[in-house]
Amino acid sequence: MKKHMSIGMNILGFGAHAAAWRVGEVPADAYLDVEYYRNIARICERGCLDAIFLADGPALVGDVATQPVGRLEPTILLTAVALATQHIGVIATASSTYNDPYNLARRFASLDHISGGRAAWNVVTNATDAAAQNFGLANQLQHAQRYGRAEEFIDIACKLWDSWEDDAIIGDAGTGRYAHPGKIHTQDFVGQHFSIKGPLNLPRSPQGRPVLVQAGSSEGGKALGSRYADAIFTTQTSLEDGLHFYRDMKQRAEQWGRNPEHLKIMPGLSTVIGSSEAEAHARFDQLNAYHGEHGLIQQVAARIGIPAQELELDAPLPWARIGEVGTYEKGSQGFLEAQLNLARREGLTVRELSRRILVGHRLLVGTPEQVADTLEHWFLAGAADGFNIMPDMFPSGGEVFVDEVVPLLRKRGVFRHEYSASTLREHLGLPYPQSQYARSLA
Amino acid sequence: MKKHMSIGMNILGFGAHAAAWRVGEVPADAYLDVEYYRNIARICERGCLDAIFLADGPALVGDVATQPVGRLEPTILLTAVALATQHIGVIATASSTYNDPYNLARRFASLDHISGGRAAWNVVTNATDAAAQNFGLANQLQHAQRYGRAEEFIDIACKLWDSWEDDAIIGDAGTGRYAHPGKIHTQDFVGQHFSIKGPLNLPRSPQGRPVLVQAGSSEGGKALGSRYADAIFTTQTSLEDGLHFYRDMKQRAEQWGRNPEHLKIMPGLSTVIGSSEAEAHARFDQLNAYHGEHGLIQQVAARIGIPAQELELDAPLPWARIGEVGTYEKGSQGFLEAQLNLARREGLTVRELSRRILVGHRLLVGTPEQVADTLEHWFLAGAADGFNIMPDMFPSGGEVFVDEVVPLLRKRGVFRHEYSASTLREHLGLPYPQSQYARSLA
Repeated sequence: MKKHMSIGMNILGFGAHAAAWRVGEVPADAYLDVEYYRNIARICERGCLDAIFLADGPALVGDVATQPVGRLEPTILLTAVALATQHIGVIATASSTYNDPYNLARRFASLDHISGGRAAWNVVTNATDAAAQNFGLANQLQHAQRYGRAEEFIDIACKLWDSWEDDAIIGDAGTGRYAHPGKIHTQDFVGQHFSIKGPLNLPRSPQGRPVLVQAGSSEGGKALGSRYADAIFTTQTSLEDGLHFYRDMKQRAEQWGRNPEHLKIMPGLSTVIGSSEAEAHARFDQLNAYHGEHGLIQQVAARIGIPAQELELDAPLPWARIGEVGTYEKGSQGFLEAQLNLARREGLTVRELSRRILVGHRLLVGTPEQVADTLEHWFLAGAADGFNIMPDMFPSGGEVFVDEVVPLLRKRGVFRHEYSASTLREHLGLPYPQSQYARSLA
Repeated sequence: MKKHMSIGMNILGFGAHAAAWRVGEVPADAYLDVEYYRNIARICERGCLDAIFLADGPALVGDVATQPVGRLEPTILLTAVALATQHIGVIATASSTYNDPYNLARRFASLDHISGGRAAWNVVTNATDAAAQNFGLANQLQHAQRYGRAEEFIDIACKLWDSWEDDAIIGDAGTGRYAHPGKIHTQDFVGQHFSIKGPLNLPRSPQGRPVLVQAGSSEGGKALGSRYADAIFTTQTSLEDGLHFYRDMKQRAEQWGRNPEHLKIMPGLSTVIGSSEAEAHARFDQLNAYHGEHGLIQQVAARIGIPAQELELDAPLPWARIGEVGTYEKGSQGFLEAQLNLARREGLTVRELSRRILVGHRLLVGTPEQVADTLEHWFLAGAADGFNIMPDMFPSGGEVFVDEVVPLLRKRGVFRHEYSASTLREHLGLPYPQSQYARSLA
């Protein structure tokens, strides 16, 4: 089969545009309604997308006065969504800083069992003080500590997922032999952050291990992702940056002794789509009008970590001040760097930057053809194995992508016409991971 | 409406009898299949039971060679089950020792949202070294430490569930006002075990707070449960003990300033039901034959914390040895005491004890009439507000309870004919809890 791109869709909240809830496509409490998400997932599945994705963080952040900022817990919500779909993968974000490996490994393995092999864990370290303060810490752990913990966390999670070999269960009711004790392995893991005996209290799940997604584009994030992840969500604001990141990550994967094809690079892309360019821009203008100038400034301020009162909408970014902040530790480093690079490179004002970025990712305002062109171009140029799409607004922004962009990608031979497999790992073209304990007995 | 009893059903694994999987009513891997549980839940809902219940612990315990001991994570599994039912409550067990309050409160609030107000948390402290060793501890915390942590955990969970007042959301798309910031409260909680800023990143759930169930019958468990719980699962092996426990707990609730009717006492009862006594005993004999004498000894040994080789099937329990073990810290104290009391009172041998107890609870082998008699008798005598039923084997043991016992209870006027409400809290006759922050603003 010809190689095709992978596509995930970020289904958080009302869509990528902060004012999406105000347009009134769905009620203002829809983001608490499981049927709202199930509907979006079914739309994505009708387009044969690889996966839906939920971002997350364990804290209330954002302005409650003007934004619907609450969030259902992703593994619970995606369990509900998985059971309303048959093929599409479900990628839940969870923090390696604010979870325990045993509970988290079990929860994702449970979701993998229940979904028939469609679960993925998007590993984040949570770079906010707000999260830290809900877990007994005055401030977040330093970057290096978070990533040290994340590495050990992933290592032990994989060991737990491998702890039952594939053929550990006999299940012979006649003789009463349930399992081979020799094929169920304790870990007796003692590391710097965790010590865990194991084994997991759950047999191996359909994918062997849930798919691992990693979203950090900092140096620590790249080292971690290239070593352990199956897919990387990344923010890239120019093709050149994208090409560079792609080559860098594939090389890193090889240095870890991995087949670079088994590390999928998936840049994020926010979309505002109209049947003409004018229509797309009108849609965007409408959303921005709801948001207002104050909203735009606040959005940029929150993202670059500079108070809103220090920003002017039609002035360049305050570069001296940004230099001061220096070793920025209050947000995702990868997101921040990508945005600052974009603004510096193109000399953007605050307003212009706000129109080029939504939820931290590159924004494309245009026709289905223009979106398909970009995806195809990045894919064929070798800057992406796939994309994480963040439509401006649900359901319409998801529907127009699936019904207008996907058919163009199919025509151009770069996306599937139907699902050929049943697990997310297979959709992504990833091999089934043998249990590390099975190898030792071979 | 006349007062009626509450009934929950424990749907763990293949049923309460350790040999249930060997009878072959369902495939040997059914306990990993969400449809297996959904089927049982629908059976329970057809009987208008109040809830289904999943026991749990974060460790692999039991003999993998002969027992299907893996378990799907309860909040994930019960999300799946809730979405296949309309009325029945879902009670998930989770440990206060091996979870963080913020994550757990959010997960249960999410389940409450998704189920439309049918979620409950069964708080356990997890009294096994096996669990401790999966969370960086060589041995479990001492009893008092576990309960001190549990109390603080529940307190902060309630504060998080209350952190959004009921009317915090405005949701006015026209003006862009999403919520009243003054009705969303930080906790700034600093305790002995936790410090948590809050608020929860999720609006208040349909029940205000998920129902709280508590299952410890030790002194620490009783103090905790009488103060915080909405319902108590308990093991009582005689009506006299049951009456005493019931009165004790209601008095304790009053001493905490609570209305004792808002604390529901629900003893556990395992059932082996046949259309005649002889048929019931034949069913039990068949299950025991699968289990074998070795299995019976092992089951009692595990429960009383004495090695199997020190027990003889047709001899009394080794009381001198049990005296030595003294301050028993390796399992649930309430379960242990209830069983030892039963064996001592009636001078039971190991074999006899094994035939009186299943999964730690009193066992009734008999006809639907006999089961209904017992439930009615305990209920009317004032030893129980309801029961947690643990059928020997699924689905048949659950079906016979629903289809044969429930109609008798209805005829006798002690159980509902149909659901009159949509939330678990309402099924149980519990009031809606106002947010503690709303009170302070009244």
